[in-house]
Amino acid sequence: MQLDWKQICSPTLILDEEIAKANIAAMVQKSARAGVSFRPHFKTHQSAEIGEWFREMGVNKITVSSVGMAEYFVQAGWQDIFIAFPVNLREHQRLNGMAAQVSLAVLLDSEEAMNGLSEKVFHRLSVWIEIDSGNGRSGMPWDNPRDILKLARRISGGGVHHFAGLMGHAGNTYAARGKSEVLAVHEESLEKMRSVRHLLNQEGVEVHGISIGDTPSCSLADDFSGATELRPGNLVFYDLMQQNIGACEEAQIGIALACPVVAKYPERGELILHGGAVHLGKDFLQGSEGKRNFGHLAWPDGIGWSKSEPNCSLISLSQEHGVAKVSPTMMQKVNIGDLLLVLPVHSCLTADLMGEFTSAASMARGTPIHSMRTRIAGYLNEIARK
Amino acid sequence: MQLDWKQICSPTLILDEEIAKANIAAMVQKSARAGVSFRPHFKTHQSAEIGEWFREMGVNKITVSSVGMAEYFVQAGWQDIFIAFPVNLREHQRLNGMAAQVSLAVLLDSEEAMNGLSEKVFHRLSVWIEIDSGNGRSGMPWDNPRDILKLARRISGGGVHHFAGLMGHAGNTYAARGKSEVLAVHEESLEKMRSVRHLLNQEGVEVHGISIGDTPSCSLADDFSGATELRPGNLVFYDLMQQNIGACEEAQIGIALACPVVAKYPERGELILHGGAVHLGKDFLQGSEGKRNFGHLAWPDGIGWSKSEPNCSLISLSQEHGVAKVSPTMMQKVNIGDLLLVLPVHSCLTADLMGEFTSAASMARGTPIHSMRTRIAGYLNEIARK
Repeated sequence: MQLDWKQICSPTLILDEEIAKANIAAMVQKSARAGVSFRPHFKTHQSAEIGEWFREMGVNKITVSSVGMAEYFVQAGWQDIFIAFPVNLREHQRLNGMAAQVSLAVLLDSEEAMNGLSEKVFHRLSVWIEIDSGNGRSGMPWDNPRDILKLARRISGGGVHHFAGLMGHAGNTYAARGKSEVLAVHEESLEKMRSVRHLLNQEGVEVHGISIGDTPSCSLADDFSGATELRPGNLVFYDLMQQNIGACEEAQIGIALACPVVAKYPERGELILHGGAVHLGKDFLQGSEGKRNFGHLAWPDGIGWSKSEPNCSLISLSQEHGVAKVSPTMMQKVNIGDLLLVLPVHSCLTADLMGEFTSAASMARGTPIHSMRTRIAGYLNEIARK
Repeated sequence: MQLDWKQICSPTLILDEEIAKANIAAMVQKSARAGVSFRPHFKTHQSAEIGEWFREMGVNKITVSSVGMAEYFVQAGWQDIFIAFPVNLREHQRLNGMAAQVSLAVLLDSEEAMNGLSEKVFHRLSVWIEIDSGNGRSGMPWDNPRDILKLARRISGGGVHHFAGLMGHAGNTYAARGKSEVLAVHEESLEKMRSVRHLLNQEGVEVHGISIGDTPSCSLADDFSGATELRPGNLVFYDLMQQNIGACEEAQIGIALACPVVAKYPERGELILHGGAVHLGKDFLQGSEGKRNFGHLAWPDGIGWSKSEPNCSLISLSQEHGVAKVSPTMMQKVNIGDLLLVLPVHSCLTADLMGEFTSAASMARGTPIHSMRTRIAGYLNEIARK
């Protein structure tokens, strides 16, 4: 099977289904071996069709990052959904709507938020307490167990809602490099979660779940003792950021942006690609001497792309321009009007921006796979209402 | 008139119509005074409805950055469109389609691209040569006039297409700080454009147009001698990046993202807002000691927002999280469930991500203003075809 590259005229997000399915299968198997549930984060792909691949491998509960995304996946038939983002009380009507239909879990880290929830949401929710085990973004500090206990009691002490457990996101693994650094962060974070649970148990508050799940930890660790569920999302596609951490190999990266070459500057070794900030997002890898890397370059190849070309990368992005620094070898081979594939730095943002995936399999069916993203889905609904 | 802030439950892009219209009017008046055409870049707002505000002020030609965006504005009735991005030859069918209907201009900087265009596009195009006057992104180096002359002769020497003139984008003003630095870059760039035109004229190649137009130059300069048209886009909304350059005052910033407050950490002086990379984009202002600023914070106020609060800004963004460092004053006043307004660092990317604008005027009409972005429009078309 071959992609018909002649059909690709504009920036297009190419998906290698085989790679993505292998990534999902590996995590399904690992969580089964470790005896923990797999509750994948669907914010990376935001696609009902890709969601089915997980379902076919036995996954029956998912994580999302917004109420809109939860509504989209409720429509797609998912019945057990965790909105792993501090609960947005202004959206209480939509929370009530969903909580009446499916098993819905939310996240919070203060009595103020819990009081708001009790006042405004009348249908049963599972409520997770977010614990900050070192990442420093959100959550109650793990070393303030009295406040955690107080909140846990407040949640489990009557009322319609239910205390689900402790949730952590060890996002500080993103600053780690290599397996041993990632595992050190992972083990320390998990130990902190277990210590909080121990204290709550001692005080008579039962902790049903410990939910963890950054992609670096889930990719590199095998021991998740104490955790009851894993929530990684990025691993469906991976990206250069994960490769740079050491959480994946390049061969596991499942999406790449096909970009037309629109200008060539042999004298300075640079190309302009049609592929910019509105396609890739602006995350970058920080190189030495302030140099930034916005993506590696590869050639179209069969149903996917070649290994990335050495010494070829995007060095800056404008709204639509991608400026690529390329090797003399690539410069010699490339013509204006060719396609190059960009391996993204952050696949979640690239997928969110592009909104749809194209694969050889879907082209054989004559249709690209559409990712009905929440934002676009909401937009379509709104138009439909007029 | 008041915005009904209670209606705003999720991240929502608020537009102050009065500010945006005043920004447009100022540029309309300035270009009239300077005796140059105003061909605004519509990549910033990407909205047919906002486009009408320009039309009502006498604008009849526009700039866009992609073929898809051009198609969208052709549908909206625009008849004179310049795609100011190196021409993407793979999209030749769509170029042919539009060139048969409207006055369409394209950009290129090599004989290779011009040869491709001659082969593939049969309907008349205006062809601009991009000149690199110091920005270093795309264009023929201004100090290589023999090659420029050769290409200009190739374009104007027969064939269906027409040599429109020299186009420059002094994007290096974005590294300038303050009026005098911006004007120095502007004047040097414009002088280089004039020198290239002089040489071409001497060699008997008539140069009809000189098109320039970065927002900092157009905002701060009054002298555009030699230029025939200005193409700024960002000035419709401006943003913190422009304010940081000195190209606008905060009071000229016309959009802000309304974000629900979802978590509060008084002990570390931080908030979590629902407003992240998928809403704002990831451009930032680089502060001292590696600190990054992803947006300033203001309060909802009447139809818009207050002056930004001192010492309050977004210090990091994840997919949906905005982490804000705030002053003790703001921390004392703010509650979970409140709305804060984020002044964006880069309004073009924020508008592209959000895809629609909400204003007091449109809420009074009972409908938000929809920005029918090209990407979404294309997506809708594709669905409609099935």
